[in-house]
Amino acid sequence: MEQPIQAPPAELIEAAAYIENELDRRLSASDLPHSLYEATRYAVVNGGKRVRPALTLLCAEAVGGTQEDAMPAAVALEYIHCFSLIHDDLPAIDNDDLRRGKPTLHIHAGEAMALLSGDFLLPLAFLQLSEAQYQTDQKLLLIEALSTATKNMVVGQVYDTLGQLPEQLCAESGVEEIHRKKTGSLIRCACVMGGICGNATPEQQEAIEKFGDATGLMFQIVDDLIDMHGTTEHIGKQTGKDATAGKITYPSTIGVERSIEEIETLKEQADSALRTLGKQGETLRTFNLWMAQRTR
Amino acid sequence: MEQPIQAPPAELIEAAAYIENELDRRLSASDLPHSLYEATRYAVVNGGKRVRPALTLLCAEAVGGTQEDAMPAAVALEYIHCFSLIHDDLPAIDNDDLRRGKPTLHIHAGEAMALLSGDFLLPLAFLQLSEAQYQTDQKLLLIEALSTATKNMVVGQVYDTLGQLPEQLCAESGVEEIHRKKTGSLIRCACVMGGICGNATPEQQEAIEKFGDATGLMFQIVDDLIDMHGTTEHIGKQTGKDATAGKITYPSTIGVERSIEEIETLKEQADSALRTLGKQGETLRTFNLWMAQRTR
Repeated sequence: MEQPIQAPPAELIEAAAYIENELDRRLSASDLPHSLYEATRYAVVNGGKRVRPALTLLCAEAVGGTQEDAMPAAVALEYIHCFSLIHDDLPAIDNDDLRRGKPTLHIHAGEAMALLSGDFLLPLAFLQLSEAQYQTDQKLLLIEALSTATKNMVVGQVYDTLGQLPEQLCAESGVEEIHRKKTGSLIRCACVMGGICGNATPEQQEAIEKFGDATGLMFQIVDDLIDMHGTTEHIGKQTGKDATAGKITYPSTIGVERSIEEIETLKEQADSALRTLGKQGETLRTFNLWMAQRTR
Repeated sequence: MEQPIQAPPAELIEAAAYIENELDRRLSASDLPHSLYEATRYAVVNGGKRVRPALTLLCAEAVGGTQEDAMPAAVALEYIHCFSLIHDDLPAIDNDDLRRGKPTLHIHAGEAMALLSGDFLLPLAFLQLSEAQYQTDQKLLLIEALSTATKNMVVGQVYDTLGQLPEQLCAESGVEEIHRKKTGSLIRCACVMGGICGNATPEQQEAIEKFGDATGLMFQIVDDLIDMHGTTEHIGKQTGKDATAGKITYPSTIGVERSIEEIETLKEQADSALRTLGKQGETLRTFNLWMAQRTR
């Protein structure tokens, strides 16, 4: 592999700041009981990297749209991501006390509130899409994409939590299926939604989908490796937990070396898909390189 | 009050059987890990009364549509209701061991699976609406109605779980607001969705909404009274739990007698709204009478 690029690209940092601001603004504009608002804001407006919604904004730009047009979709998608983190951290699932160096929501606000805050974000995402300023057909495409991805993500989480392989799959196909569902589906959806918001041509949309497929799976394999080698200080949550919890990961299934090879292959696949977008795809190509080589 | 009518109307029993069958058929057609399918089916295909989705079917008929047209919406709505029951029963919220005389899902399949099964049903509901054979505009109206109602239901659950009144409301307005959100919003939505599926005229839709508003609030006040006086055997879950849990209810706020008066008033409001539907509204009027006088 090439020399690690640790710093996220400038475009991601800019997009993340824009998204952070919008999440804050939109949550504070919603009419909520104070306790629910406080809890939800604690979990959502947290300075995260915003990889997924940034992909939505950048994919919209890569097909000729604007970040502004893609923002309602990006925010809806990030609500879903935040819901999944809140619920995954709960004692019944991963029982994590720390996220991004802060106590997780159930530690901060109690288990009942964490459960309900996650439950609240899910319909909020679909309401936001149904009320956004998109064409009717665009809205339905976005809602279909996001509901499919969310459903698949939960299925992936079931496999992940039970530590069981999907039926009738060998270990290698099984871990791929789990990772594609658990993590890949929402990252792919982030890209697909960006294409829809940016009114992509069918050819552009196909390229975006291929990119999302490859980079989404790649993201989770990189995460598996970071979990093995990172430290708690680096990533703000406990590391080595996958092994302790007996989770099915790429390195535990096919070994570290083959996992690294797989990352290289997927990075190439993603890069090759983006080439069909021409110069407009450059930012995503840099992004993809960082996704492959990030260390946290 | 008139003599209690204990038996549900024949139309509800028929609609419930049709809905039960459709829930079973649609869940078994979805491609799921076996453990998630088993858990979700256990919670969803359970012989429930199906009051909410039956209202969707009957409201569609009351405006000149068919039950068949309204079924995808009714099933989506029932998924949301089932999600809310599964999560409300969890130890972090109501900690209920029994539902309809059977162990609750987290007792049957574990807390992680119960949490994830609820999380699965939510996007499934929106996916079903986005894929159903409705006109594009109908789909968006249905999705907007269901996401709004689900969001409000979770807000109501926050109040209910914390046992706090909504800010700046006195006890009486507070309990109304909680009940309208926690229970009323989904029942109202069931009616509204039926109207949308049946292509209601604006006048019909207004009548359906008024009916749903009144009967939805009424339903929860009746439930409060049943919780005080019912027995575990009757309703298949523990009773008297509201008082034990210090929950805010109508009888605990305004007393039993005034709660009964409020039920009468709401029953009349609902009935009066239905009168504008003419003869087609007769079934709903019988339904409404049963809702007010049911003892379980």
